[in-house]
Amino acid sequence: LTAVPPADQQDTGCSCGSPLLTLLSDFGDRDYYVGAMKGVILRHAPAARILDLAHQIPPQDVLAAAFVLHHAAGEFPPQTVHVAVVDPGVGTQRRALVLRNRIGTFVAPDNGLLSLVYRWDPGEVRALVAPFVESARLSSTFHGRDLFAPAAARLACGYDLAQVGPVVRDPVLLEATHARVDADGIHGQVIHVDGFGNLVTSVAAGQLPAAPQRTRVILPGNRSIAGLSRTYADALPGRPMALVGSCQLLEIAVRDASAAALLGLRRGDPVRVHGH
Amino acid sequence: LTAVPPADQQDTGCSCGSPLLTLLSDFGDRDYYVGAMKGVILRHAPAARILDLAHQIPPQDVLAAAFVLHHAAGEFPPQTVHVAVVDPGVGTQRRALVLRNRIGTFVAPDNGLLSLVYRWDPGEVRALVAPFVESARLSSTFHGRDLFAPAAARLACGYDLAQVGPVVRDPVLLEATHARVDADGIHGQVIHVDGFGNLVTSVAAGQLPAAPQRTRVILPGNRSIAGLSRTYADALPGRPMALVGSCQLLEIAVRDASAAALLGLRRGDPVRVHGH
Amino acid sequence: LTAVPPADQQDTGCSCGSPLLTLLSDFGDRDYYVGAMKGVILRHAPAARILDLAHQIPPQDVLAAAFVLHHAAGEFPPQTVHVAVVDPGVGTQRRALVLRNRIGTFVAPDNGLLSLVYRWDPGEVRALVAPFVESARLSSTFHGRDLFAPAAARLACGYDLAQVGPVVRDPVLLEATHARVDADGIHGQVIHVDGFGNLVTSVAAGQLPAAPQRTRVILPGNRSIAGLSRTYADALPGRPMALVGSCQLLEIAVRDASAAALLGLRRGDPVRVHGH
Repeated sequence: LTAVPPADQQDTGCSCGSPLLTLLSDFGDRDYYVGAMKGVILRHAPAARILDLAHQIPPQDVLAAAFVLHHAAGEFPPQTVHVAVVDPGVGTQRRALVLRNRIGTFVAPDNGLLSLVYRWDPGEVRALVAPFVESARLSSTFHGRDLFAPAAARLACGYDLAQVGPVVRDPVLLEATHARVDADGIHGQVIHVDGFGNLVTSVAAGQLPAAPQRTRVILPGNRSIAGLSRTYADALPGRPMALVGSCQLLEIAVRDASAAALLGLRRGDPVRVHGH
Repeated sequence: LTAVPPADQQDTGCSCGSPLLTLLSDFGDRDYYVGAMKGVILRHAPAARILDLAHQIPPQDVLAAAFVLHHAAGEFPPQTVHVAVVDPGVGTQRRALVLRNRIGTFVAPDNGLLSLVYRWDPGEVRALVAPFVESARLSSTFHGRDLFAPAAARLACGYDLAQVGPVVRDPVLLEATHARVDADGIHGQVIHVDGFGNLVTSVAAGQLPAAPQRTRVILPGNRSIAGLSRTYADALPGRPMALVGSCQLLEIAVRDASAAALLGLRRGDPVRVHGH
Repeated sequence: LTAVPPADQQDTGCSCGSPLLTLLSDFGDRDYYVGAMKGVILRHAPAARILDLAHQIPPQDVLAAAFVLHHAAGEFPPQTVHVAVVDPGVGTQRRALVLRNRIGTFVAPDNGLLSLVYRWDPGEVRALVAPFVESARLSSTFHGRDLFAPAAARLACGYDLAQVGPVVRDPVLLEATHARVDADGIHGQVIHVDGFGNLVTSVAAGQLPAAPQRTRVILPGNRSIAGLSRTYADALPGRPMALVGSCQLLEIAVRDASAAALLGLRRGDPVRVHGH
């Protein structure tokens, strides 16, 4: 009836202070998946502190997870281990990765989930192989519990990164979303829609024209926004505004409302910016 | 591409035992906002234990957050620091507050979010000013990460409240929702609808007529409920009942169903009670 | 206005290391219920580490909670205390239980929530009585806060199980969902639908025919699936597959889609398996 390991197979030998681990997934808040991963981590690292980043990433949306992971993990102490599981390829030959860079240590499937943290700092990437596997029951459908969680716990307890597996020089990377600049302006796209309906674009603050008041943002359907606001409160309710958001990226927002709903825009839609 | 502070700007100097902090917000469970706040807290207070209160407060619903904050924070040890971020006015001139009273220490925008804990015990209120600000990157759109979280972490580590900023004697308070008593009875309203559809009213247990069986609750649309039930199980399925709920407030509920849906009532709707 | 206990009634006398407790409920993420339980636990066990298992169990769905509890709790160190509150009978005469077995210690209402962990190992079951009750304010509607949380905290701090209350030999058990085998094959049912729409059935891996490729799964509406897949990636997108899932139970899934939606199936629907 159950997959519970007998007590005498439980590994509680870690004495590693109180390491920090975070969890990010598309598992939601009504299944046993998140709880099972927490339990496995605590069996392998009994003193661990486990923090939830987000678990309602849209199902199998690797790009959304990559974005959230980068901007959340970047705030943690660098000794933190981040486990991220959005894994449509579980059970295929896709590799499992460990990445350690100046932000922290990451454990995730090799499907692009680490694209943003890797581009920020490639650090050292290794494929996760045998010794970490709970081999007695490595399932084909839940590597979060059977592979990523025990690996993360051991890394948090000081397991040597070099022994995880071979170096990987070609992790799967999502297509870069950096905005492109040419004579017509800056060509970007919507890369994230947050829970308030704010539209985060790929246009970086550093790419924007020097004069905020002379900036014009062109949206699909020949709509445009003139000027940059400084904050959400600078525009009239119901009026779309453009501003530099907390990720240092250009955002399209509507005060007290959802810009995504009001403008009918979604991830991937093009955005163009020019000064004039 | 990112707002990650370089490692040498990270403050990890706190050695303050294992302080307790809680988080309450309308950030949901699919964005980087909650995770970023946790990371900032742990950078400033590496030993902190962080507890989630609730993150799916309806977007920008300050009253719902004030209600949840009061009834959750009230159960914690008084040395806990509670960070509450429902902040439609971010980027305006609204102040940031720290309130310390017999319940605990609260960090929140000055928009009424602290109304209920302040009315229960005004304690000491101060405006949060300069030294707490991660000034190198105080965003105009995410004070949870750049202002409230670092302030809360430092307060949890023992930073002196008197040095936070000047005393505030006029925090923004939501209109008091206390029920009013006159010759016609007790005049209250629905102040909270919980996830089960139970309707919590502003009528306090102490205001109710002495004889539960002679109590009559009048709802909009000339509907009424005779008598008080003791618990959800006291009424027949499908029949609205009135009872004193776990907040010591009059509640309207339907066994195994949503009273809000069944009665078509919502927050703000009037409720009248009289004995007879 | 509030149920906050005065500071001098607060019990902070526990010095019990850093015990682990988990919470499972149908309270959602927008109310004060989860936060209040965490606060009460920390008042009684100040060093506790509290882990969320899941809080968006469908309202009052005891079977879903029993399933999630079993498969999550089973991964934790056995000294963990698990508090599970899905409690449609709160306020009735239903008992409150403590179960300690090889998985861990469980505190829950006596409504079937412990069925799966009890069937796996009945351990020792006791009714939770007087000394644990915060008698000054035992509400009739929120035993999670007033009964289960303080009991769990004290048990986590080493309170003697034998003193909790009398032994219970007849806990409420949900009807066993084990699949039945006869000459026509294995007769099971859908017992859980996860957040991805995968259909977990009551057919155990050990009951399946020896030859995966000769297995046939018969679904309602005369539909059938031939053969067992090894993992989600083994089938073509859009095609239903059968496989042994991470609980060691037969699952019906559709790659990159919801089997529940595509097949129009839900919990309780019959599933039959035969070899041929």
